[in-house]
Amino acid sequence: MSLPPEFHEIARRVNNWGRWGGSDEIGTLNLITGEAVRAGVATVRSGERIPLALPLRQGGVQSGLVPGRVDPLHTMTQINAELFGPGAVAVSDDTVTMGLQAATHWDALTHASHSGRIYNGRPADTITAHTRARFSGIDSFPPLLTRGVLLDVARTKGVDRLPAAHAVTPEDLDEAAEFGRVTVAAGDVVLVRTGQLALCLAGDRRGYGFPSPGLSVRTPEWFHARDVAAVANDTLTFEITPPEIEGLWLPVHALDLVEMGMPQGQNWNLEILSTACAQARRYAFLLSAAPEPFVGGTGSPVAPVAVL
Amino acid sequence: MSLPPEFHEIARRVNNWGRWGGSDEIGTLNLITGEAVRAGVATVRSGERIPLALPLRQGGVQSGLVPGRVDPLHTMTQINAELFGPGAVAVSDDTVTMGLQAATHWDALTHASHSGRIYNGRPADTITAHTRARFSGIDSFPPLLTRGVLLDVARTKGVDRLPAAHAVTPEDLDEAAEFGRVTVAAGDVVLVRTGQLALCLAGDRRGYGFPSPGLSVRTPEWFHARDVAAVANDTLTFEITPPEIEGLWLPVHALDLVEMGMPQGQNWNLEILSTACAQARRYAFLLSAAPEPFVGGTGSPVAPVAVL
Amino acid sequence: MSLPPEFHEIARRVNNWGRWGGSDEIGTLNLITGEAVRAGVATVRSGERIPLALPLRQGGVQSGLVPGRVDPLHTMTQINAELFGPGAVAVSDDTVTMGLQAATHWDALTHASHSGRIYNGRPADTITAHTRARFSGIDSFPPLLTRGVLLDVARTKGVDRLPAAHAVTPEDLDEAAEFGRVTVAAGDVVLVRTGQLALCLAGDRRGYGFPSPGLSVRTPEWFHARDVAAVANDTLTFEITPPEIEGLWLPVHALDLVEMGMPQGQNWNLEILSTACAQARRYAFLLSAAPEPFVGGTGSPVAPVAVL
Amino acid sequence: MSLPPEFHEIARRVNNWGRWGGSDEIGTLNLITGEAVRAGVATVRSGERIPLALPLRQGGVQSGLVPGRVDPLHTMTQINAELFGPGAVAVSDDTVTMGLQAATHWDALTHASHSGRIYNGRPADTITAHTRARFSGIDSFPPLLTRGVLLDVARTKGVDRLPAAHAVTPEDLDEAAEFGRVTVAAGDVVLVRTGQLALCLAGDRRGYGFPSPGLSVRTPEWFHARDVAAVANDTLTFEITPPEIEGLWLPVHALDLVEMGMPQGQNWNLEILSTACAQARRYAFLLSAAPEPFVGGTGSPVAPVAVL
Repeated sequence: MSLPPEFHEIARRVNNWGRWGGSDEIGTLNLITGEAVRAGVATVRSGERIPLALPLRQGGVQSGLVPGRVDPLHTMTQINAELFGPGAVAVSDDTVTMGLQAATHWDALTHASHSGRIYNGRPADTITAHTRARFSGIDSFPPLLTRGVLLDVARTKGVDRLPAAHAVTPEDLDEAAEFGRVTVAAGDVVLVRTGQLALCLAGDRRGYGFPSPGLSVRTPEWFHARDVAAVANDTLTFEITPPEIEGLWLPVHALDLVEMGMPQGQNWNLEILSTACAQARRYAFLLSAAPEPFVGGTGSPVAPVAVL
Repeated sequence: MSLPPEFHEIARRVNNWGRWGGSDEIGTLNLITGEAVRAGVATVRSGERIPLALPLRQGGVQSGLVPGRVDPLHTMTQINAELFGPGAVAVSDDTVTMGLQAATHWDALTHASHSGRIYNGRPADTITAHTRARFSGIDSFPPLLTRGVLLDVARTKGVDRLPAAHAVTPEDLDEAAEFGRVTVAAGDVVLVRTGQLALCLAGDRRGYGFPSPGLSVRTPEWFHARDVAAVANDTLTFEITPPEIEGLWLPVHALDLVEMGMPQGQNWNLEILSTACAQARRYAFLLSAAPEPFVGGTGSPVAPVAVL
Repeated sequence: MSLPPEFHEIARRVNNWGRWGGSDEIGTLNLITGEAVRAGVATVRSGERIPLALPLRQGGVQSGLVPGRVDPLHTMTQINAELFGPGAVAVSDDTVTMGLQAATHWDALTHASHSGRIYNGRPADTITAHTRARFSGIDSFPPLLTRGVLLDVARTKGVDRLPAAHAVTPEDLDEAAEFGRVTVAAGDVVLVRTGQLALCLAGDRRGYGFPSPGLSVRTPEWFHARDVAAVANDTLTFEITPPEIEGLWLPVHALDLVEMGMPQGQNWNLEILSTACAQARRYAFLLSAAPEPFVGGTGSPVAPVAVL
Repeated sequence: MSLPPEFHEIARRVNNWGRWGGSDEIGTLNLITGEAVRAGVATVRSGERIPLALPLRQGGVQSGLVPGRVDPLHTMTQINAELFGPGAVAVSDDTVTMGLQAATHWDALTHASHSGRIYNGRPADTITAHTRARFSGIDSFPPLLTRGVLLDVARTKGVDRLPAAHAVTPEDLDEAAEFGRVTVAAGDVVLVRTGQLALCLAGDRRGYGFPSPGLSVRTPEWFHARDVAAVANDTLTFEITPPEIEGLWLPVHALDLVEMGMPQGQNWNLEILSTACAQARRYAFLLSAAPEPFVGGTGSPVAPVAVL
């Protein structure tokens, strides 16, 4: 199925190609200015730090649906090895093989393409096996630290988890912002909680992945209007799956990553943060979430930290 | 060679076993209190963010000297794959295989053992191929964000790079702190710059690795006296190599990781930070450096960020 | 559960420690003499070659039950890369990550140990993370080519697949040999068909793995009496699972690998061979099945070929 | 540099596209008939088996020149793990990450392409990250077992190793065949010994790789005239490197793999075989060399065995 007119209409409204110049590779991450960083820093009260990453191991998020997106295979290459002789100081070392999008991660802008184009209008074939992403790889991200805002849609609606068929709409986001008494500002990273991850934490990996609540195709305009720097949530697919428009898969990916140039995060554990924000009655915090700089990577695991 | 009496004397003085209870797994990371976090946050002025990680790719830090500690092998599993039919939104995905200590990384406390023990007196054989580190794995780290302090020993001495035979002493650290007009406090993460990484950046990977300047066996007491939370530097081996006491390899690893329970970081790129601190005339900053939570990992790549 | 007296009684009867000297690493593979090879060669009539390996890919045999035993993750590192300039000859390259026991494979003798010992009485702790198997690694195998014999137990019994609770007994082996009018001789590799693999080929990976028919704890004596060089079959676990003696898991592994020093093969595809032997009315053939020589490996994928 | 007229002239003469039908994927492997297999079997005298694979480990053939073509990284996932309780039978398991062309290997026909085409005229873009090689992958190989012939060019010329600048010509091949009193026949696999591997075995990996003697651009016609099924040798690059025609890199790859559809093997250890053939005064033998069936693989490690 080629992309329908309604997709292209939204695309025109959120498109940021050229906004930061023709050579730009980082899109809305340009919006994280020193001012935005200082706004994030200014939210800190107690200094409580909340981790948002899932543990990395076999038996993680992946259920085999996406070939190649493998759970971390973590193996020891040395165990208490006395490399310098018996009685010497011993060393343990380890290695990992994993999909860069397998666990809590950021999508690079190059994770999606459509109509042969990636962000900023570059040809999609600038991604090759040999070079990986020549532009807009995950290593192009500036250090990702700014103000974070939790829009706790599930809690706002008084449920632990949104139904699988629930597309998170701009109205839901407004409602959650009001619930949290927080105003989303330019350069913020917005975290949207659906509660879906609870399924994965309870061991139901397939149920977690599909079907899944997630962001509506109408949300990119909401983020665009507010100059949000990036958005992450607690689902495998980020957007509602199966999609709202039959046969149009991954439209939000195409709008956020390709048209706006806005990174997306998935599989973020927002459960502890949800409780902490509710208790503190504050839904803004300092967020630190720098990806690992894989050269030309189209994604990266990340260990995000919220500081209240 | 078994460990000599002088090692055991220092070990006694810096030992933290039991200090945070018999079940503690994180050692000096306990010292990163809310107060320490707030002290870090309080240093931020401009919001300038400086990345401290090396790019992750083949042709990185490793030269093959440590078998199994392999440079990142990063491969594409999908390139603009139209998984949902021709004309659909396309997706690119990738995977990596890498040594967890191969690039800019944290050592978990379990990276070293001696005399059959790891930190807090636990048996070293709690690390197995099947379970990896059952205690004090890298996933036990609380989110690592606190005040960072750069002790720029090379700049203090007016050189780009310390000679290979230079063991960084407590006196050097005092001198660099004075140069930076900064006082190391409890819960700080200290970054020690030798300038050695410049060799690696210039393409001399073997010269970078060995021989190498690094921390003296006398420094653990200095860090212990100040209740430093963790220390990282810009070398492959962290400590001076070959070692100060002939035949006694990796004594600083054994003192820091096993005895004190203080994490070490290696291969951190402190070159840009050095310039930025010198220009800002400030050597304290907010440091965010959470490792990826590999369950039972004895190390992890990290993408540290300093915020000035 | 420690090993019961009945295990130790069988162990005594099949034990080959010292039979080929104290420094021997290959056990019954010593039995593949030039004469045995020539006997294998002498069976060839038509030259028809039948492959016995499963395809290597994601979605293979593994269902996640054994952490770390991962299906092949096969990725391209170059795709038609014109490394020498536009218009030049282009190259495609690829890499794999996989468990050495994940697909059609040989177990090295070191794949199992009991009571702290591996084959020939060596200490089990000669296998380490750093060195892998210092003795009896898969790389110690001499080139494995000899006469092969198919004992088609399923066909003999007139079924497509043995029931899950069926332990293949010495009597079953005798019956299948008689059915195939073949006499097992010293230095032969025996292939035992249960038909269980059909479950895997039909997509039921979990059903394939457990529960499973397989060799009875009484079969090692049968193989020992005939000086068989190695045995392979078409199941995940080789021996009947759950085991015949409650709580005594993997006794056949311990008897074959540790006591006799006889390699085992698993996940061999014997379906096509079964048909071919039935049509040719011959159950002996030339078998070529050399493992890949991973240094210190405790197993290896293998692409066996039977030549009729 | 685009391909010069002299390349296209040879290409026309050796081209096999369509010879075995438009849907053919295996090229000259079609020439291994039952008769060829029986001819291989008929050469066996003593049953002596000679392995031709290099050991698989770190510190192998690769020197880092080809990114992504990594030496085997072999790690233990279980070491004597008593998965069923203390005292139970224990298991050791392992995994590997490696380049499929990193060690002793076969090139699939898809390893090379030129002018947008692979063997049999198919589009080169049938190789993708997602599907790998959709046609002519290494898994399409029929079981590779036939007569092998050693053309020991180095021994024929009375040297241990050919000079780096020596392109092995058709005349050299004739001379070596005469030296070995052997006639190359249809369906044979020809092994060409240069002696270059001795450099690698002596630890000089860079010297081994480049510059290197190897097959001349004139040899494909020689193999084509004799209907050879496949050719392997003891170099990293197979063909002489740097190439005979300045700027025309990998012409032999393009002629053998793309035009003729004839597989190539590299890094084969022919040293022991050379001695054995000289002693036996016979240069033909049974060769068994089935690759591992990676689905869509453009190469595979192989553990070839010659039987004299």
